[in-house]
Amino acid sequence: MNGDLGKLKLKEYISKAEPILLTMLDGEIEKAREFGEVQVKMMELFKRMVVSGKGLRGFLVTLGYQLGGAELDENILDTSVFIELFQTSILIHDDFMDRDNLRRGFVTAHKEIESIGQELNVKIPFDHYGNSMAVCLGDAGFYLSWSKLLQSKLPLENVMETGKLYASFMIRLALGQSMDLTVTGINSINEEDIMKVILLKSAEYSSVFPLQGGLMLAGNKNKALSDLVDTYAKNLGWAFQIQDDILGIFGKEKTFGKPVGSDLSEGKNTLLTVHLRKNGTPEQVEFLNHILGNANVTQEDVEKIKKIYVEAGSYDYVKNLGTHHVEEGVKVIPEITRNKELQDILESLIVYMIERVK
Amino acid sequence: MNGDLGKLKLKEYISKAEPILLTMLDGEIEKAREFGEVQVKMMELFKRMVVSGKGLRGFLVTLGYQLGGAELDENILDTSVFIELFQTSILIHDDFMDRDNLRRGFVTAHKEIESIGQELNVKIPFDHYGNSMAVCLGDAGFYLSWSKLLQSKLPLENVMETGKLYASFMIRLALGQSMDLTVTGINSINEEDIMKVILLKSAEYSSVFPLQGGLMLAGNKNKALSDLVDTYAKNLGWAFQIQDDILGIFGKEKTFGKPVGSDLSEGKNTLLTVHLRKNGTPEQVEFLNHILGNANVTQEDVEKIKKIYVEAGSYDYVKNLGTHHVEEGVKVIPEITRNKELQDILESLIVYMIERVK
Repeated sequence: MNGDLGKLKLKEYISKAEPILLTMLDGEIEKAREFGEVQVKMMELFKRMVVSGKGLRGFLVTLGYQLGGAELDENILDTSVFIELFQTSILIHDDFMDRDNLRRGFVTAHKEIESIGQELNVKIPFDHYGNSMAVCLGDAGFYLSWSKLLQSKLPLENVMETGKLYASFMIRLALGQSMDLTVTGINSINEEDIMKVILLKSAEYSSVFPLQGGLMLAGNKNKALSDLVDTYAKNLGWAFQIQDDILGIFGKEKTFGKPVGSDLSEGKNTLLTVHLRKNGTPEQVEFLNHILGNANVTQEDVEKIKKIYVEAGSYDYVKNLGTHHVEEGVKVIPEITRNKELQDILESLIVYMIERVK
Repeated sequence: MNGDLGKLKLKEYISKAEPILLTMLDGEIEKAREFGEVQVKMMELFKRMVVSGKGLRGFLVTLGYQLGGAELDENILDTSVFIELFQTSILIHDDFMDRDNLRRGFVTAHKEIESIGQELNVKIPFDHYGNSMAVCLGDAGFYLSWSKLLQSKLPLENVMETGKLYASFMIRLALGQSMDLTVTGINSINEEDIMKVILLKSAEYSSVFPLQGGLMLAGNKNKALSDLVDTYAKNLGWAFQIQDDILGIFGKEKTFGKPVGSDLSEGKNTLLTVHLRKNGTPEQVEFLNHILGNANVTQEDVEKIKKIYVEAGSYDYVKNLGTHHVEEGVKVIPEITRNKELQDILESLIVYMIERVK
């Protein structure tokens, strides 16, 4: 197996998807001039966020398309970016909800637009202005995504079926986010609930939908194949999210793009916190409760909790869970496709999920 | 002309659309059980908002469909409700942005969910919880709307074209809302800017899109017809919004469903404020500036500004503008259709826009 093939193909995808996105969004920036200078700035901000994205979901759409037996071409590339447009839009909404100030190394949309409001001295409170405008921008982004999907040159029926699937997954994602906001701040949350939120927010939306959408765009009607892809995709999503939780504490801010420890100050329960609560000493749990949801978490606190997670075995436990999901995903690959290159891509991609540092 | 035909047909539409919406949303409430009690409450709230809606936009879709030469049937009725689902979703977002506490006589979504957060004692600030959850609910609603549209049994190609039109209008609506948030609070705003916001938020989205969408669902390819419908629709939208501005000050809270004077306390410039600034005495303008954007606007203030609007001629001016748009819309009706009943509906509907009290 070529261990870097997934990563290489992802890079290749990004280099092809970027010009498509830039052309589209430059057009939208021009259209925004009709509305005003602020709307132009909003669209520029949107464009910057889209092109700084991981490109993973769009890549998965093209991968699913190939697993469905179709050849990679201009049409699927052009269509696939609809999900990158959606991804940026939902992140804009999420960052407002999570009150995050940084994303991918940049100031988040609601914070940046808050500054615009300050400069303009708008009449409504600046933070509310920033939040509201960011929600508007995300809403516009959802519809840009639909516009891209429906303008696809792929067969009408396949596009329509993909659209139906898209709608049904995104309803679940929105409810999953509302569940995240409600339950992850509760200390009595159990592992099952956390896995459920991960399943909804990460596995279903970020892996299952893009791969299944790709299969559908290729016109796949093979239910057995679709089920196998589902198994692979869920494990891919879990591996991704588990690594995200780890990077949120053990990652480096510079590479990860958002403040390490922000999960802590936001009071977010993750697999790490759940394991520690069950397995840590009373002192360790007390320290966790002390810093979780504390807006003034210091660098020392982060260092101390990292040490605790390692000592209590939480770090190893979560790392192993990631490895477990990678193994489960890898198992089904030979049944999904006999194409050696696609097999290599699928395998190296899922391994990359738990090795990535950003 | 039967002066009540538009109103009657609208009522008839609502009585047919309501069971379709109830069946769909009861299904969504059931699905929400998988997520949790909070999500069930959110969906119930969504359902209550949808069925308390005016039904005007869905009705316009069915009207456009008939103007496109097709017969009213179950399929168009079923499809038309997609826009009612969207309408509720965008209102949920708007109410959060406008910080409104009442809508259609009910507590607004973000305020109601704030109370749920209080009961649950969630970890994030209750108001932020309410706002975030309401944004999630609106997002889910957008995708429910897409789901409904794409599941249409009407010809695939017509549905697809309508979907493209839908996306392009809603991008403009979101930017229009962001413009509203930015410019209507500025005292130097001119009539042109206000008309632009009205055009984007009300005429384009609430009238032009539903009627054009209906034409498209019927497979209309006649550009001349589509242009005539455009003229009628824009005037209908303007008439609607002008009356909305009037009801916001001169309406009765009980029938209008939201607090009279909330436009004032939100600091919203309308055609009334622009006219008064240009034509009022210095004392009148000073009083306007004093209460606009003032959170503590009293009932006496509202009564005083009503008197001022009448004395300065602002009330008559805006009323006449409404009448003007009704006349402009009525003019093109004979060219749109030769069907006497449809003519009656179009005429009585546009007249109703400036006569309605809620």
